[in-house]
Amino acid sequence: MVIEVYLTPQEFTSEDLKDKIAVVIDVLRASTTITTALYHGCKQIIPVAEVEAAMNLAANMPRDTRLLGGEREGKKIPGFDLGNSPTEYTPELVSNKTLIFTTTNGTKLLSKTPKALKTLVASLVNIEQICQHVIAHPETDLGILCAGKLNRFSLEDAVCAGLLVTLLGRHFGESLKLTDAARAAELLYQKYTDNFLEMLQQSQHGKYLIEIGMGNDLEVCARVNSIPIVPCFKEGIITPI
Amino acid sequence: MVIEVYLTPQEFTSEDLKDKIAVVIDVLRASTTITTALYHGCKQIIPVAEVEAAMNLAANMPRDTRLLGGEREGKKIPGFDLGNSPTEYTPELVSNKTLIFTTTNGTKLLSKTPKALKTLVASLVNIEQICQHVIAHPETDLGILCAGKLNRFSLEDAVCAGLLVTLLGRHFGESLKLTDAARAAELLYQKYTDNFLEMLQQSQHGKYLIEIGMGNDLEVCARVNSIPIVPCFKEGIITPI
Repeated sequence: MVIEVYLTPQEFTSEDLKDKIAVVIDVLRASTTITTALYHGCKQIIPVAEVEAAMNLAANMPRDTRLLGGEREGKKIPGFDLGNSPTEYTPELVSNKTLIFTTTNGTKLLSKTPKALKTLVASLVNIEQICQHVIAHPETDLGILCAGKLNRFSLEDAVCAGLLVTLLGRHFGESLKLTDAARAAELLYQKYTDNFLEMLQQSQHGKYLIEIGMGNDLEVCARVNSIPIVPCFKEGIITPI
Repeated sequence: MVIEVYLTPQEFTSEDLKDKIAVVIDVLRASTTITTALYHGCKQIIPVAEVEAAMNLAANMPRDTRLLGGEREGKKIPGFDLGNSPTEYTPELVSNKTLIFTTTNGTKLLSKTPKALKTLVASLVNIEQICQHVIAHPETDLGILCAGKLNRFSLEDAVCAGLLVTLLGRHFGESLKLTDAARAAELLYQKYTDNFLEMLQQSQHGKYLIEIGMGNDLEVCARVNSIPIVPCFKEGIITPI
């Protein structure tokens, strides 16, 4: 198995993911929020790149069947039901609903994966489940896509990618082929090992979230393996596998 | 001083470098070769993005005053005088000549730095000199540009960037402001500390160079602080400061 890690969204084209498993990582916070919403009974999530498109889509659905969620600059979008904090996505609110979801970095990545064999949504909270799913497909190469922030490198996504590389390394050993970026991600994870909260607090985006009063989210996003599901993006919709 | 590291060329625009010192890093091998050529008496280097443009430029200069150098896929370009191995750029060949130089990754980066206050060319062989030059401008922010390989992350450029961040950290201490990528580069350097040859041998591009018979270049490129000059790119020309 070849593992390629793309540390920023511009490093790959959709062609690079052809016939691979794509794993999309946006630890702070889109991947974590998507995983939480599905775990709490959300029926399906429709990721949308732009705010206006999300609003148009919502306008065409019965009000009691859908929720509009997402952020710009980390904050809830005016007119939306929910922001991008995983803590907002409680069973009471999301159960059986369709979530239309738009975020600055994470949801845009998904639109670049149409040629992948399958596309999974990963974060610290479900990384072991993602790993087990990948292990079940040992002949398929892996493309790990870090969302980053505004097309720049994000420490937390690279560390989460490195954790996945490390877990797969424990299973597959020397038979894994790692690119430079996959090796670098692995080394960055090893630096922090399991001090994920500290790592999130040191990251640029973590600091920004603390600054805008969303510091509690860091603790939730750092809870490694707290949610045993694998969100899968297929034909425009995210559902659990 | 804020230090931003751009791990791949697409992560920044020329506007991001405005009024900063830009440090261009392409360890394997453009930065190392440029530094070697200047150290061996080359009068000036004109970096050119495309092969045809390089040939046209050369055709308009007296034959005994110029050299055409560079690579595609790591190999010397047909019709060129020299490739991209630092070992080719001996005092006998380069002294007092103008070098017209085109490489796949490194030389293209230079064209993205017109708004920088100044643009320096760095690699392991001259990193301490680069550091001293930056230290002399403590009020100016720094943008470290990793050439990478075909728009992807390269381990060796990130480690070299991390060495520069580490050296500057020793001088400036807590007053340095590091972005996520600068912090990650620092951590990657700390992983390898001074085992640069081993790091180059493990890198994807290092392995490729060994494969095409250029393995000796890795040893030359790993000789940290062996060349005490600072190449500076200004108005289309690289000369030593």
